[in-house]
Amino acid sequence: MKLISSLAFAAAAVTLALPASAQSFGKPEDAIKYRKAAFTVLAGNFGTLGAMANGRAPFDAAAAANAGAAIEAVSKLPWAGFGPGTDKGDTRAKAEIWSEAGKYKDAADKMQAEIGKLAAAAKTGNLDAVKAAFGPAAGTCKACHDNFRRD
Amino acid sequence: MKLISSLAFAAAAVTLALPASAQSFGKPEDAIKYRKAAFTVLAGNFGTLGAMANGRAPFDAAAAANAGAAIEAVSKLPWAGFGPGTDKGDTRAKAEIWSEAGKYKDAADKMQAEIGKLAAAAKTGNLDAVKAAFGPAAGTCKACHDNFRRD
Repeated sequence: MKLISSLAFAAAAVTLALPASAQSFGKPEDAIKYRKAAFTVLAGNFGTLGAMANGRAPFDAAAAANAGAAIEAVSKLPWAGFGPGTDKGDTRAKAEIWSEAGKYKDAADKMQAEIGKLAAAAKTGNLDAVKAAFGPAAGTCKACHDNFRRD
Repeated sequence: MKLISSLAFAAAAVTLALPASAQSFGKPEDAIKYRKAAFTVLAGNFGTLGAMANGRAPFDAAAAANAGAAIEAVSKLPWAGFGPGTDKGDTRAKAEIWSEAGKYKDAADKMQAEIGKLAAAAKTGNLDAVKAAFGPAAGTCKACHDNFRRD
């Protein structure tokens, strides 16, 4: 019971610490599906900008702006899917997300800040700005994957 | 060969007809995963606004604005995932998406237009505006599901 209470408390703490959301899920697996979908959409559009930043794709200002708008909006979304009961199931989320909720919140905040800068760069139509912002944003993805996601 | 060529042509036609995108996918299954994720994120945030519009959740202006930004950006994304080779696999997409590409494009355009109106309403902080825009947007979701998605 002690462990269960402790986990429930940690989950509640994360829910409170992460951005407020009216998103509600019928079942924990719906929340897990949603947060994974948000990360998939984020990664896809992040990859679009990365391909341009790294010269693997030609720079397309309109596509970059759309990808920028997508990552900016979607980077705010996954957190609503980490509520109580979502630490188990079809997920690679590590227990540290809940047991070190403050650290996870910091990592999430850093990601959103750097994604915001990349999104702003993507809207300028300037490839050099995208290149400059891409690396720091990618670093925040990797940091969180290293610490909070199982291989 | 005739059928294969015809399908390939139809797929190419859709790719050309739908909004330009620099999104590239390594494999068709990656594209299918991406478009499904985009629809999942879209549905989740659409549901957030729907719950407020229908009185199942209290109106939260900040959450509504975030959901509005999300649906506006994400409604533009799934179409990149309907390229060649993505008509088969882990998908409920009907063949009509490719065989009636013009109709599918019209349905996709209507959805994006109504989602755009709902997103604009969500940013006003006015629940009545959200209520007014929600129904027509929901209608475009249903129309496309009825015609282009298997049960």
